[in-house]
Amino acid sequence: MQLSDFENVTCPVPQADRDRVVLGHGSGGRLSAELLRRVFLPAFANETLSALEDQATVHLPGAQRLAFTTDSYVVRPVFFPGGDIGRLAVCGTVNDLAVGGARPMFLSAAFILEEGLPLADLQRIVGSMRAACAEADVTAVTGDTKVVDRGKCDAIFITTAGVGLVPDGVSLSIHNARPGDRVLVSGTLGDHGMAVMSAREGLEFETALESDVAPLAGLTQAMLDACPAIRCMRDPTRGGLASVLNELASASRVGVKLNEAAIPLRLEVRAACEMLGFDPLYVASEGRLIAIVPPGDADRLLGVMREHALGRGSAVIGDVVADHLGVVTLRTRVGGERVVPLLAGDQLPRIC
Amino acid sequence: MQLSDFENVTCPVPQADRDRVVLGHGSGGRLSAELLRRVFLPAFANETLSALEDQATVHLPGAQRLAFTTDSYVVRPVFFPGGDIGRLAVCGTVNDLAVGGARPMFLSAAFILEEGLPLADLQRIVGSMRAACAEADVTAVTGDTKVVDRGKCDAIFITTAGVGLVPDGVSLSIHNARPGDRVLVSGTLGDHGMAVMSAREGLEFETALESDVAPLAGLTQAMLDACPAIRCMRDPTRGGLASVLNELASASRVGVKLNEAAIPLRLEVRAACEMLGFDPLYVASEGRLIAIVPPGDADRLLGVMREHALGRGSAVIGDVVADHLGVVTLRTRVGGERVVPLLAGDQLPRIC
Repeated sequence: MQLSDFENVTCPVPQADRDRVVLGHGSGGRLSAELLRRVFLPAFANETLSALEDQATVHLPGAQRLAFTTDSYVVRPVFFPGGDIGRLAVCGTVNDLAVGGARPMFLSAAFILEEGLPLADLQRIVGSMRAACAEADVTAVTGDTKVVDRGKCDAIFITTAGVGLVPDGVSLSIHNARPGDRVLVSGTLGDHGMAVMSAREGLEFETALESDVAPLAGLTQAMLDACPAIRCMRDPTRGGLASVLNELASASRVGVKLNEAAIPLRLEVRAACEMLGFDPLYVASEGRLIAIVPPGDADRLLGVMREHALGRGSAVIGDVVADHLGVVTLRTRVGGERVVPLLAGDQLPRIC
Repeated sequence: MQLSDFENVTCPVPQADRDRVVLGHGSGGRLSAELLRRVFLPAFANETLSALEDQATVHLPGAQRLAFTTDSYVVRPVFFPGGDIGRLAVCGTVNDLAVGGARPMFLSAAFILEEGLPLADLQRIVGSMRAACAEADVTAVTGDTKVVDRGKCDAIFITTAGVGLVPDGVSLSIHNARPGDRVLVSGTLGDHGMAVMSAREGLEFETALESDVAPLAGLTQAMLDACPAIRCMRDPTRGGLASVLNELASASRVGVKLNEAAIPLRLEVRAACEMLGFDPLYVASEGRLIAIVPPGDADRLLGVMREHALGRGSAVIGDVVADHLGVVTLRTRVGGERVVPLLAGDQLPRIC
């Protein structure tokens, strides 16, 4: 199967009623961006928010710069192969700090619980959070619990926020990419999204399809130590690789050319995507990152990434170009080239 | 009507099925404390979390101490007299920082939206958040939006986290109260809870019953400037005055004696409580604070509080005593004395 097979797939995007929230507004795609621009940015207009990074970097009197981020997690099912909502809630927030070059330090965790949730499930989820915090070397220092009536939420929603310190000299941004830069990825893409979808749909494969959910701060630290010139890092969560690179192309006013043959994909992920009609370029990972690096640093950085347990499958998958500004293209295995657009809505609702 | 009229009211506390989450687990009462001790503290054991303040205070290299807090907001109805879920989500988190003595600086906001929510409602809510941020002099710097299928949440849930700086020398804690200290409150109690409940039940009163929801950082700043010796401040949200003082009595190993006649209550709040069968001592405020101060400072501090727009109704309502350690008592208007216990569960589900 080739990525280009998906060229003509029509994804089940709900028709946007312009006056109501639709699932696509939470997709990380075009409708999400529209909601941000239409509702949130005008209200909260400030430079930090408008930078649209995965984390806010703010200045504190007398301190290094502080990175601050938050995400809500509403994944369904709550338990999936390779992880659960608790592990996801810790790793997702840690990773948003890490890809900004910050050292994640403290987390908050706010729980919205549905009346009737088995306490054993909550204990298992909280146990995963504890293990993920230890793995990521962060401390959960504050939290909150609300309970809503049966039928008013879906078992459990978790919102984590995280703070970390950004060392002097680190300045990563989706506005930084320049023509000539190379695009690296730290491993196979889409494992998380397809593991969750397969669990939801009850699909079974010969080999296990497992989420890649993992905390990336160790990897990002090793990368920045070896190569301080990295322009930008992002974790391809909601909306996958395609959405991250479209944001980057647009923010940095560059083009991006991907090489389909170089993009690491597990056979099981390809198979599950084919079966369910998804394009793997848009499927979320939760333990992978994309890095944009100056051309002279790419090979050395690739070596550093491959030496890290979470970067064994790293690869150079494309280039930043001065052509087709704001647009991402894919050189297919059969030698063609196609545009990889920002999707309007959701391929995969509620995978995070 | 006297507070003591409620002595024999039996509140509708759901019988706790020991293996499942019940509404009372989100009440701020005894079941909440039990969940914290049974599930969350063992998992996330660390000194900061175990201090059980409304905010975590952590040390950053080279910086002042950082205060960090989070809360989820699930109030129903979303719009109520005097405010809405957006104003509440900003003020609640600002206040948790402020009562810790911190200067609130940055907020995050994570939205969980139900498919079908009118965008006009979202815009109105976000507009309230913007206004509340301006009022509190904080900046919303990062956020997230998730959308869940219709019927999987209740219109909108908002989780805010906040960071602020704690000036050197400030050290407020529920562990600090000492016999002889006086208990002050910044205004009438229970306005928020009864405004929400009245809106929910469709009650109408001759005069409007409005939520007191407001950001308290200006008031706390003025109080700390005038009286750095304040031992502790808390905002009596979920579980109300009674729950805050029970926590304090237990954490500081002191007794607390309240004077019923001195506790400021609006007539409308008394009437609504009587009609709905609630004890106002347990009803949430969202723009009030309790302060514990050394006896010599009480009168001066009271003057300072009354000069602030949000402290006009301040009063001394009781004393910290060396008797009945861990227990809060109320001297009633008719001269009796009764214990004000920590409730097991919820009088008022989902008022924040």
